[in-house]
Amino acid sequence: MATIGHRRWAIAEGYIPGNSVSQDHALVSHETICLLNAGDRDAEVAITLYFKDRDPVGPYDVTVGARRTLHLRFNDLTDPAPVPRDTDYASVLFSDVPIVLQHTRLDSRQPALALLSTIAFAERTED
Amino acid sequence: MATIGHRRWAIAEGYIPGNSVSQDHALVSHETICLLNAGDRDAEVAITLYFKDRDPVGPYDVTVGARRTLHLRFNDLTDPAPVPRDTDYASVLFSDVPIVLQHTRLDSRQPALALLSTIAFAERTED
Amino acid sequence: MATIGHRRWAIAEGYIPGNSVSQDHALVSHETICLLNAGDRDAEVAITLYFKDRDPVGPYDVTVGARRTLHLRFNDLTDPAPVPRDTDYASVLFSDVPIVLQHTRLDSRQPALALLSTIAFAERTED
Amino acid sequence: MATIGHRRWAIAEGYIPGNSVSQDHALVSHETICLLNAGDRDAEVAITLYFKDRDPVGPYDVTVGARRTLHLRFNDLTDPAPVPRDTDYASVLFSDVPIVLQHTRLDSRQPALALLSTIAFAERTED
Repeated sequence: MATIGHRRWAIAEGYIPGNSVSQDHALVSHETICLLNAGDRDAEVAITLYFKDRDPVGPYDVTVGARRTLHLRFNDLTDPAPVPRDTDYASVLFSDVPIVLQHTRLDSRQPALALLSTIAFAERTED
Repeated sequence: MATIGHRRWAIAEGYIPGNSVSQDHALVSHETICLLNAGDRDAEVAITLYFKDRDPVGPYDVTVGARRTLHLRFNDLTDPAPVPRDTDYASVLFSDVPIVLQHTRLDSRQPALALLSTIAFAERTED
Repeated sequence: MATIGHRRWAIAEGYIPGNSVSQDHALVSHETICLLNAGDRDAEVAITLYFKDRDPVGPYDVTVGARRTLHLRFNDLTDPAPVPRDTDYASVLFSDVPIVLQHTRLDSRQPALALLSTIAFAERTED
Repeated sequence: MATIGHRRWAIAEGYIPGNSVSQDHALVSHETICLLNAGDRDAEVAITLYFKDRDPVGPYDVTVGARRTLHLRFNDLTDPAPVPRDTDYASVLFSDVPIVLQHTRLDSRQPALALLSTIAFAERTED
């Protein structure tokens, strides 16, 4: 199986709404990053968060197994610090092997869900 | 007619909600991949699905005719196995000729539809 | 002013819902392509539509003035033929000068609007 | 910390709905550009807006600090001129150092929010 993807990714958009109309886990307002590792080696991924008016926080260390996908909620990140709600942030991810990254938000501040998703930005020049 | 596109694509986001407020085919929660083959030869496409905690499943074989588009619902894939609902997955597609790929989800778990769409990730380095 | 963009673009996703809860022009279900021509020469753009089970239709000829943007509804295309509703399609655009292209759908089949948008696929290898 | 991103970006889609069901700042219809500067030098960014039938307006000058993100609402731009509501526009951004750019709209013309987001178009050929 050939590998697919890049090792450096960025998501400029980040915002977890602080409230939700539902506490059902599937419907709580959340931001997810979907990581795909189609290769034969586990991917060690380091995530750094950027903010408007304070220094970056990280790295958050995550492993994506070989030939596996991981859909990770920013809501669930705790080490080295939880992600603040109702706060603008951005993220940069470095992986030691090529991966593919996509970003999705479910906003349930209102009974009608709103969804957004976009492919993340891949730094193609180095891979 | 010049060809347009690439032969290797990946979608890191995948999730089919298990319920819908409507059973109208157009409004059932679904995930669609839109494949465009603008070239003069049929495209033979092999799809592999990746999961969180088990081995990949595939290939699912699909043909997109020359100068045709195919909007394929993951919901409708059955061979070699149906796509589980309420389960995170990701997908990789290999085509023997260049195609263009886009990914859309309609979420009708609530009466108010939610839509997301994004261009898939194209591996540009080989084509 | 430097030019920005590419000359060949594709959108694999296309679908105009046949009904809307509102006849207000801004809120009728529609698909829009946003074309940006930041350069100093007018852009002559040829659009071809692809379908599932019949031959492509086109070209639809559109001009985007120098240093102008054009947000064009597929709903409004009529020559050589209107775009059918409730039908899957895809599109390819060729421009004689570099442009930037983005694709948006507003779905108002339900009172709660649903929106999707994504950057179109740019064929980078030739420009 | 390695830099990530590009210096030239474009967003072909632009439209700020003129009305909202809520005047809560978080829920007013708005368009946001999320800028990420992961590098060690401040980014000086010049934004130019393009319209359908009049000349471009700009530059709007914005600074994104080193290792910071800025989520900027087009609604809030005033110098050299406010961004008109209910009007199609597009934008081009030049930065003196590499940045990453993403574009999001929240549409609250109806009680059910609609969201869209997409990575902006990066001119990769020069960076």
